[in-house]
Amino acid sequence: MSKYVYFFGSPKAEGDRSMKQLLGGKGANLAEMVNLGIPVPPGFTITTEVCAIYTATKGKLPDEVTAQVKASLARVEKEMKRKFGDPSNPLLFSVRSGAAASMPGMMDTVLNLGLNTATVDAWVARRPSDESRHFIYDSYRRFITMYSDVVMQTGREEYEEAITHMKKSRGVKSDADLTSDDLKKLCDEYLVLYQKKTGGTFPQDPMQQLFAAVNAVFRSWSNHRAETYRRLNHITGLLGTAVNIQAMVFGNLNNTSATGVAFSRSPSDGENFFYGEFLINAQGEDVVAGIRTPQQIGKVLSLKWAKEHNVSEMERLKKFPSMEEAMPECYRQLCDIRGNLENHFRDMQDIEFTVESGRLWMLQCRNAKRTALASIKCAHDMVGEGLITKEEAILRLDPNQIDHLMHQQIDPKAAMKPIGKGLAASPGAAVGQVVFSATDAMEWHAAGKKVIMVRLETSPEDLAGMNAATGILTVRGGMTSHAAVVARGMGKCCVSGCGDIVLNGKSFTLHGHTFKEGEWISIDGTRGLIFKGKAPLVDPSFKGVFSTVLGWCKQYKRLGVRANADTPKDSENAVTFGAEGVGLCRTEHMFFGGARIDAMRQMILAENEAGRVKALKAVEPLQRSDFIEIFKSMGNRPVTIRLLDPPLHEFVPHEEKAQADLAAKMGVPVAFVAQRVRSLHEENPMLGHRGCRLGISYPEIYNMQVRAIIEAAIEVGKTGLVVNPEIMIPLVGKREELEFTKLQAIKTAEAVLAARPGVKVNYTIGTMIEVPRAAITADEIAKEADFFSFGTNDLTQMGCGFSRDDSAVFLARYAALGIYPRDPFQSLDQEGVGELIRIAIRKGRSVKPLLKIGICGEHGGDPRTILFCHKVGMNYVSCSPFRVPTAIVAAAQAALLEVEEATAARKKLAAGSKL
Amino acid sequence: MSKYVYFFGSPKAEGDRSMKQLLGGKGANLAEMVNLGIPVPPGFTITTEVCAIYTATKGKLPDEVTAQVKASLARVEKEMKRKFGDPSNPLLFSVRSGAAASMPGMMDTVLNLGLNTATVDAWVARRPSDESRHFIYDSYRRFITMYSDVVMQTGREEYEEAITHMKKSRGVKSDADLTSDDLKKLCDEYLVLYQKKTGGTFPQDPMQQLFAAVNAVFRSWSNHRAETYRRLNHITGLLGTAVNIQAMVFGNLNNTSATGVAFSRSPSDGENFFYGEFLINAQGEDVVAGIRTPQQIGKVLSLKWAKEHNVSEMERLKKFPSMEEAMPECYRQLCDIRGNLENHFRDMQDIEFTVESGRLWMLQCRNAKRTALASIKCAHDMVGEGLITKEEAILRLDPNQIDHLMHQQIDPKAAMKPIGKGLAASPGAAVGQVVFSATDAMEWHAAGKKVIMVRLETSPEDLAGMNAATGILTVRGGMTSHAAVVARGMGKCCVSGCGDIVLNGKSFTLHGHTFKEGEWISIDGTRGLIFKGKAPLVDPSFKGVFSTVLGWCKQYKRLGVRANADTPKDSENAVTFGAEGVGLCRTEHMFFGGARIDAMRQMILAENEAGRVKALKAVEPLQRSDFIEIFKSMGNRPVTIRLLDPPLHEFVPHEEKAQADLAAKMGVPVAFVAQRVRSLHEENPMLGHRGCRLGISYPEIYNMQVRAIIEAAIEVGKTGLVVNPEIMIPLVGKREELEFTKLQAIKTAEAVLAARPGVKVNYTIGTMIEVPRAAITADEIAKEADFFSFGTNDLTQMGCGFSRDDSAVFLARYAALGIYPRDPFQSLDQEGVGELIRIAIRKGRSVKPLLKIGICGEHGGDPRTILFCHKVGMNYVSCSPFRVPTAIVAAAQAALLEVEEATAARKKLAAGSKL
Repeated sequence: MSKYVYFFGSPKAEGDRSMKQLLGGKGANLAEMVNLGIPVPPGFTITTEVCAIYTATKGKLPDEVTAQVKASLARVEKEMKRKFGDPSNPLLFSVRSGAAASMPGMMDTVLNLGLNTATVDAWVARRPSDESRHFIYDSYRRFITMYSDVVMQTGREEYEEAITHMKKSRGVKSDADLTSDDLKKLCDEYLVLYQKKTGGTFPQDPMQQLFAAVNAVFRSWSNHRAETYRRLNHITGLLGTAVNIQAMVFGNLNNTSATGVAFSRSPSDGENFFYGEFLINAQGEDVVAGIRTPQQIGKVLSLKWAKEHNVSEMERLKKFPSMEEAMPECYRQLCDIRGNLENHFRDMQDIEFTVESGRLWMLQCRNAKRTALASIKCAHDMVGEGLITKEEAILRLDPNQIDHLMHQQIDPKAAMKPIGKGLAASPGAAVGQVVFSATDAMEWHAAGKKVIMVRLETSPEDLAGMNAATGILTVRGGMTSHAAVVARGMGKCCVSGCGDIVLNGKSFTLHGHTFKEGEWISIDGTRGLIFKGKAPLVDPSFKGVFSTVLGWCKQYKRLGVRANADTPKDSENAVTFGAEGVGLCRTEHMFFGGARIDAMRQMILAENEAGRVKALKAVEPLQRSDFIEIFKSMGNRPVTIRLLDPPLHEFVPHEEKAQADLAAKMGVPVAFVAQRVRSLHEENPMLGHRGCRLGISYPEIYNMQVRAIIEAAIEVGKTGLVVNPEIMIPLVGKREELEFTKLQAIKTAEAVLAARPGVKVNYTIGTMIEVPRAAITADEIAKEADFFSFGTNDLTQMGCGFSRDDSAVFLARYAALGIYPRDPFQSLDQEGVGELIRIAIRKGRSVKPLLKIGICGEHGGDPRTILFCHKVGMNYVSCSPFRVPTAIVAAAQAALLEVEEATAARKKLAAGSKL
Repeated sequence: MSKYVYFFGSPKAEGDRSMKQLLGGKGANLAEMVNLGIPVPPGFTITTEVCAIYTATKGKLPDEVTAQVKASLARVEKEMKRKFGDPSNPLLFSVRSGAAASMPGMMDTVLNLGLNTATVDAWVARRPSDESRHFIYDSYRRFITMYSDVVMQTGREEYEEAITHMKKSRGVKSDADLTSDDLKKLCDEYLVLYQKKTGGTFPQDPMQQLFAAVNAVFRSWSNHRAETYRRLNHITGLLGTAVNIQAMVFGNLNNTSATGVAFSRSPSDGENFFYGEFLINAQGEDVVAGIRTPQQIGKVLSLKWAKEHNVSEMERLKKFPSMEEAMPECYRQLCDIRGNLENHFRDMQDIEFTVESGRLWMLQCRNAKRTALASIKCAHDMVGEGLITKEEAILRLDPNQIDHLMHQQIDPKAAMKPIGKGLAASPGAAVGQVVFSATDAMEWHAAGKKVIMVRLETSPEDLAGMNAATGILTVRGGMTSHAAVVARGMGKCCVSGCGDIVLNGKSFTLHGHTFKEGEWISIDGTRGLIFKGKAPLVDPSFKGVFSTVLGWCKQYKRLGVRANADTPKDSENAVTFGAEGVGLCRTEHMFFGGARIDAMRQMILAENEAGRVKALKAVEPLQRSDFIEIFKSMGNRPVTIRLLDPPLHEFVPHEEKAQADLAAKMGVPVAFVAQRVRSLHEENPMLGHRGCRLGISYPEIYNMQVRAIIEAAIEVGKTGLVVNPEIMIPLVGKREELEFTKLQAIKTAEAVLAARPGVKVNYTIGTMIEVPRAAITADEIAKEADFFSFGTNDLTQMGCGFSRDDSAVFLARYAALGIYPRDPFQSLDQEGVGELIRIAIRKGRSVKPLLKIGICGEHGGDPRTILFCHKVGMNYVSCSPFRVPTAIVAAAQAALLEVEEATAARKKLAAGSKL
């Protein structure tokens, strides 16, 4: 006979915490607490296997379940010394869901189960005080509502209407102000209402109630809300939910009862300090609901709270005493349990407790959710306390959270309501006055103002404006739109793709709020939120423990971590944040701004090679000096420089006025400029004349860049630094493209070196792998390449056929339908694009076994992708400077997971060989 | 010692025709003719290996060459009874290049080699007649010019100036009118000129002349012109050119001398009739140069020619007698040689001959170039004559030529000069009046006029105009641009991408010629040419032998051949041309025209699903009736229908006036229409919201289409036909996309069928493989697919990252540099995109071993690609109806080549096993 029901209670639970898959997180931890000797109301768990059977059979429970439930129930009755359905001493149950992964509020719960008219009457007879009657009728009323709603799926509106009507007729505001007679009357009304809604009488048989509730919880596993939640949170591979049936204890029974929640350490900063709140004579939901002001459990925090809220010590002691003061015995017991749980689970705990008539019961414990700061601090401290190893500390971090430590944030204590939502394109928060153009952003910034630039979308022409703005908000564009990529590179807050914004000249409207130029807004790029007015900000907490923990990570990681840095400032940041080199220096960003863009435009509009060469002459010294600064700041670290990549039309003005200005500057008719700009137009610029195609059409451009690189390397080499420039050719799809551009580059470099006898520069020449064809024919391409660097943005665009500028509209639906559960521009599509990468690595290394391989797309900063990069054997990842710490943590985790997997595999093998 | 020189002459040549790689085509065939006992001036061939050594050593000949040349030369002297450099009886040589592949005019030739001042003087002394002196001085003059130009690379301008000056001073027009004294004087002038140009005296040593000429020919193998020619004609794998040194014979020696060219059958229509032209007392180049009117070799054709040219019999006999009449003995001998060569080479021959003083010499024979018609006719007839097998006949066809038989052509006899060149986008020829918009094309067409529509580029809005036009000419766009693809599908002549055209409202200028609306032009889509005025056209020659040969091909081919057909008319054509089904029916073309486009636009502009469903209701019956017609015309053949693919913005008007019209029709403000159109704009529409992405965003569109398909199948099924619709989902990249759309389609289809009990439709649901990701994960996708069809246009666009609309500009340079030797949109990139196809087939069939796989991109009609499709194991190819015969031939060749290869491999194995 299969075992479907696991008892937890004296003397020992049948389950333990290792059985999370079978008993759910809640059930496993309740069993574990029982086994630790911690007071837990007894109960039993119906396994997730039963849920799977229930789902597969469309609502049938295995026959054995009934008998096993009854047996466990008898043990609970025995321990609680009450009987289920016994009017004289009724045992009541809570029936709660609990899967292996947390799905808060997604599935159903029934409390107070076991009540019926007979038990209520008998109970009242036994405890006739008004307080007791109030409690009993209120419990019954709540149970009827919950049962009707959850089990019979009637909704609860009419029940709420009835109580609202009752309060109105009694002239009271709160449920608590109703008399016990009112509540009794409500119970009667509810029973009638139940019959009206369901067509049957309210079940009086507790056992019938119990199984109906169990069925309802199992059913709720497959409801739309729960399924959506699992899909959005990428929860897969679970059998179903378990059902926990636990004896009810009441925090709202009397004034020696209470209920509360606590964290074993501070979930906001990780300090090793017992933090929690409780309410006397209350139910669990009252603490959360915020109707009453919760009290602190510890005296120290209670005093601090009173001071902050101007509450006199007299009033505090009377109305808001700490648990330490009000229930010293229970408090001491709770402190012991806190220590016990932390020692046992070796992690910060989030606990729920209830005191019933002076007796403490634990209702739940689990690893606590925490902020990035708390996460680092707690992991760091627990290593010091000897609770966990460094390896465990590292594996416990959420690398995605690390990012939050790098930027200003909106003060979590500020209760501001967002007025709109976009994509969390670049983390951090910004407060500023609204402007609508790059020019305005620069002018206002120059006038000492903080501005947020709001644009339909951004283009390279907006770069200076973005630099001047404190934050960027765009209507269009995804996580890898121009605005998002550039903002992340700058470490500047950005919310992109807020499609609800309606732009209208120098104002915009968002969900009914209109903002004119100069009005204040706040944006939160970490969460993708937009707020009206000025939000209070808090500074990043890049503290000592953070760098200690990063240091540990560096010891374990195998992947190199480089930064994408286009400017000397970027590369300085990169070094500060721990980058081991530059994995992508995009030279095109050097072409913007002042004289550079003018020369660039003259080059583009030139009618022949001579004209282009002349214009490029003006750019060359500027580019060389940029390279000199970057090389200097990177010291001996490698720097990968990508030659010009974007299509030329990105550099020319598309607006009439700007074209007229350029024509005047160049001394040519405006019609000429307009015609040239038109001729550069492309239907699909992403698949157009860009990357090495430019270098092949106009070798003089790449030659100029290579010259600037080699001359800069020579210059910096004079200071004693060893500069190792890695010249990277973009958008190669075929060996011959690389062969041609490489030959040009070598000729140019050797010509520079030939003019300086005795000088050497160890430059290498490699390629981006970003065209699917390149991945597929990587064995051919490897013959010409000193290194590969995966450009996963383009590889995703071409591999999946998704324009990053246009795909947001259907990718949203794809995510909702689970077609692409994750945005493939945020986290690498490992099955598809990842397969291209695996093929490319295999083929590339079949020709050059030691080929250096990295990734420099936006995915290089995504922890899931970093784990993938480690597994497929890349040498390094490269990401925006602000993501470097995230990448370091993820890289360390990847290395540790590999060891874990290897150990597990070894163990399995060893176990096998013994058989 | 290596053998570098091969003698040909009595009694036997050292080489034969099997040695084409070593001796070049010319050398091998000269040797073969000698061995057949055909009179050939003796000589010898220096092998292509020597050329390879010459190239590799930058201009050194192996030492052995000198001795071997001298030995062969001695044999020639013996046979000719003349001596090289002997003033009394000089032996002269021609020195000609000759590689294994024909490269007409690309490399250098020196004639009359061996002359010097002493031989000339001695010769003249021996033959003092004025006629002889004229001939001898003229030969010397020509030799000096040729030697200076070819060997010393001086150019020939100043020599030409000198003779021009001489003619002027003598008051004559033709070289022939100069006296022998004039020519003697010119020889002296030339010798002075030579010294001035080269700084040395003209070499008098014949042996020195000979080796200098040999070196020059080898050098010319690597000249820019020859390299370009090889690249453009995809000639690879050759060692180099051979050099043929052959005793000179002179057709211009006297009136019993002559020179001529002939074809063993008619190269224009393949009739088995000896066709050729000759000139008495002339050199080979005179026949080609067209200075004198050539005479017919046979009497019958000579009489016909005289009639056509109003030449009296008297005049004909006097001035233009046939060879049959003028040199009956040589003519008979030539006729024998013709039979001899055809029997031996078993193919139509192109021959050159010279008669010197009544003695016939053969200078060259080779397989003749011929028109498509001649090719088919000749292959057909030779099978009947027992000369070749059917297999050989098929393998001898050029499938690309077949296309020419399907369309009108410009009369090859019309000597028109093109005024411009574009891409040969869709074959055939058209003559019409110029119009500049689709509307005008339709109006003029309705008025009974023939028009050629000239556009910057075309879009789906131009479809009706293209249909009304007799030809299409565009400024932009490659071989797979909208204009090209649609025109080919319609079988309509199109020249695309003529970038030299400057459009200016209702006129255009091309290389100085301006055409206003209504002026006549002619375009040749087979060759990509544009002509001023009306060119004479000839009708296609789809004759009896053609269908006989196609019938043979059908017996051998294994690949199925289907047609891409969007309309009932297309599908009727397809059946006529031999298609075995429809491989691609693009439903979007059904949405254009009149009421359909209006309903479609209302659907697109609708604000919600209900609005879309309502608009689609209007389209559904029209679509259903189209399907009914297509199913009817295809009989029991399979029809693959692709659901809606293009992005919605292709259906909406982008011009203000059209938007205003639509707004008025829909009763909405024009601003609303404009705003909706703007919101549909995409940066990279090729990677945007199209294909199955539309079907997932708006399931109602695909549902409507599936309903129309199933209902049409039911309707046509009533007539007794077995309709097997294959529903094809476009742009799938991930299994889940196909899963979703397939499920929708099945639900819709089953709902239709459920309403008609007892009715069955054997529909299947498959997918395009056109996104690289789909190819890479084809094992996953195959789980959901009943069939795969490769969309190689998109697979090339995404695989290589080339927008077909934008890539022409750099692909031209890529072709010139040999990076992509072939346009990947014309002939499949087998290494890259082909690898995606191989992966997809392997993965797809790993899940479903019998998975039906085809190709429906533009490449499906390209013979090279068809061979590839056969090799990788596809079931069928699908191409435009007019390419179906081409595909049938190519498919048969693929099957035959496979047998040949297998036989060769078996032989090799058998040979190996004997060792």
